[in-house]
Amino acid sequence: MKRINLLVISLLFCATTFAQQAIWGVISIKSPDIHSDNNVTFRLKAPKANTVQITGDFLPTQKIATPYGKFDAPGIENLTMNKDSIWEFTTAAPLASELYSYSFIVDGVRVLDPSNVYMNRDVTNVTNIFIIGGTPGDLYNVNNVPHGTVSRTWYNSPTLGMKRRLTVYTPAGYEDSQKQRYPVLYLLHGMGGDEEAWIALGRASQVLDNLIAQGKIKPMIVVMPNGNAAQEAAPGESSLGLQQPTTQLPKTMEGSFEKAFPDIVKYTDSHYRTIAQKSSRAICGLSMGGFHSKFISAEYPDLFDYVGLFSAAIMPNGNTTCEIYQNQDAKLKIQFAKKPKLYWIGIGNADFLYKANTDYRKYLTDHSYPFTYFETGEGHIWKNWRIYLAQFTQKLFKQ
Amino acid sequence: MKRINLLVISLLFCATTFAQQAIWGVISIKSPDIHSDNNVTFRLKAPKANTVQITGDFLPTQKIATPYGKFDAPGIENLTMNKDSIWEFTTAAPLASELYSYSFIVDGVRVLDPSNVYMNRDVTNVTNIFIIGGTPGDLYNVNNVPHGTVSRTWYNSPTLGMKRRLTVYTPAGYEDSQKQRYPVLYLLHGMGGDEEAWIALGRASQVLDNLIAQGKIKPMIVVMPNGNAAQEAAPGESSLGLQQPTTQLPKTMEGSFEKAFPDIVKYTDSHYRTIAQKSSRAICGLSMGGFHSKFISAEYPDLFDYVGLFSAAIMPNGNTTCEIYQNQDAKLKIQFAKKPKLYWIGIGNADFLYKANTDYRKYLTDHSYPFTYFETGEGHIWKNWRIYLAQFTQKLFKQ
Repeated sequence: MKRINLLVISLLFCATTFAQQAIWGVISIKSPDIHSDNNVTFRLKAPKANTVQITGDFLPTQKIATPYGKFDAPGIENLTMNKDSIWEFTTAAPLASELYSYSFIVDGVRVLDPSNVYMNRDVTNVTNIFIIGGTPGDLYNVNNVPHGTVSRTWYNSPTLGMKRRLTVYTPAGYEDSQKQRYPVLYLLHGMGGDEEAWIALGRASQVLDNLIAQGKIKPMIVVMPNGNAAQEAAPGESSLGLQQPTTQLPKTMEGSFEKAFPDIVKYTDSHYRTIAQKSSRAICGLSMGGFHSKFISAEYPDLFDYVGLFSAAIMPNGNTTCEIYQNQDAKLKIQFAKKPKLYWIGIGNADFLYKANTDYRKYLTDHSYPFTYFETGEGHIWKNWRIYLAQFTQKLFKQ
Repeated sequence: MKRINLLVISLLFCATTFAQQAIWGVISIKSPDIHSDNNVTFRLKAPKANTVQITGDFLPTQKIATPYGKFDAPGIENLTMNKDSIWEFTTAAPLASELYSYSFIVDGVRVLDPSNVYMNRDVTNVTNIFIIGGTPGDLYNVNNVPHGTVSRTWYNSPTLGMKRRLTVYTPAGYEDSQKQRYPVLYLLHGMGGDEEAWIALGRASQVLDNLIAQGKIKPMIVVMPNGNAAQEAAPGESSLGLQQPTTQLPKTMEGSFEKAFPDIVKYTDSHYRTIAQKSSRAICGLSMGGFHSKFISAEYPDLFDYVGLFSAAIMPNGNTTCEIYQNQDAKLKIQFAKKPKLYWIGIGNADFLYKANTDYRKYLTDHSYPFTYFETGEGHIWKNWRIYLAQFTQKLFKQ
């Protein structure tokens, strides 16, 4: 085995030149260290630091004042140096099952945990992640179940005049069959997101693999487009190069994406073994994606029998003069006259869009338009959207 | 637009709770800032830090002494605080075109650049990346050319007794055709790598998209398996959960992966529109993947007409008693009697495997086995492997 050891050592030096401390006897740091009782210890080696803190969504939120009002921000806790000269923090109580995000703050600088290679990008911001098993955490884990395929492909949008990137989930068994056809869920991201958001932050492929394996949802194709009409693709995935992401994108929520949506349906129906009919199509999205789902499903009332609005940015009259946003009363009247099988609204009771959604529910009720309502605690966060995805998909394509 | 602004602000707070500094008037930091002359400035806000340094492969390497001998390590430079109280470092001379990796070191702690969301994981280690355009950097950029599809799928390996994850590149146009068949390149990673390595560190999909668009290579399917026979999938992508990656994996370079390789070929030929014949199959890999390519192509001499050894871990007699590694003289005699169209060896003249490869070339020459040799500077690094991929693929499937 001597040759192999030399190879390992040499490779670590030559190829991964920063990894050297791992092999020269320096204490290997485990972080996060998830204990059997679901307490978690976080550790960082930073001998010269004056203060090391941790912030993350596993800590209670705190209100912080801004020129625009008070907002929730994640709590911050101090790490202390342990006897091995490692900074350490252990949670005060076991954590509930969930996928959590965190960062360290070393002398005021936000720092990713060098002991944890698992990260999510949320718009401009990268944080480390970890999962506490149980319910719902096990839904977000890769389990020993059949796995679907996740493809990053490119579709042609004649309406937007470009090829655009598309993330597509095909369920386990899709490639082994030459004949079976599947229903399709179109799953839309929020403002600042892109075609990577549901896969990364939403753990969509894990949720789908697991719920399909449990027999709780029908095997389905899930199409995750980029909802920013000016973008070809997620940051770093287009010819714009490795630009910094931004929420300040042109052509979002001004009608272009909604208008061009049939390009995506057409591509999907012509490139995948879909059941190309209204009763086998669903559309849903979070925040801006809920806004998109609302207007797309109303504009094209023959496309989708299932509509899901997750913490939707309900802005009934839209923000531009685009035709898509006009005559909503008449469009909704037509949409509901065609009796969609499910019109589903989910929101957290602390969401800043809660009132807008309450008003919209009243509108639907006043017009006798049937809908299903699902309320959770907390606000405008991925924790809720993952739950809504699991809830909504269990209601699809079963009638 | 007021509603949109409120939405943006609210979303940044609620969904990406760390991003707050970006919108409250704090100086937005550009890092890396690639100037028009290809000098690069790196910046970090760390007002309380005593020292901020940068390390990366754009800096000259330095020899460091270890118990195992002297090894190359990337250089380290100090940042200085500029007039805006931002730590800053600008390269002393324009950088050559390349994809580079770097990290900051704040008071001794290695830190990712919070202004740069683009990162690569190399085994246990995550670093930021940036690309300097030109040659070869433009090959690694996403350009305005037709793009292939990258799929993460799962194949069945009866030989290894598990389903295993597989990264597959299908060239632009694959999905639009129902009939065209394509040759296949099997592209293998090195020790500690996995089915993500060539896509992330090797920029394989960009290299292939760009070379195909330039007409320099034939459109081909590229199959990137996981070469660690004990693993179902890359770290984080199997039911082992979000475990820390390691190079200390069982069942690497002991024959299991090589023996089971026909499972991958069988899956590929039955699930993709391949040209299922030797003259339309190539295999290559870096380091351990070169070792794998050498033994797989010798063990199954009717499978591959093109073989590429990139900085291959040449260990002629293998490391175990596995039958795969026995009788190499006889197996190579058979392999070369069948006249492979290309047996390609590439290595850097500073590679720790240079002598082993020189010895192997002498062996091939002594036996009159034809091969093509391509030597570069430097050593056992991704910079070389990306170049070898571009060189090797240009020679495939043209006869």
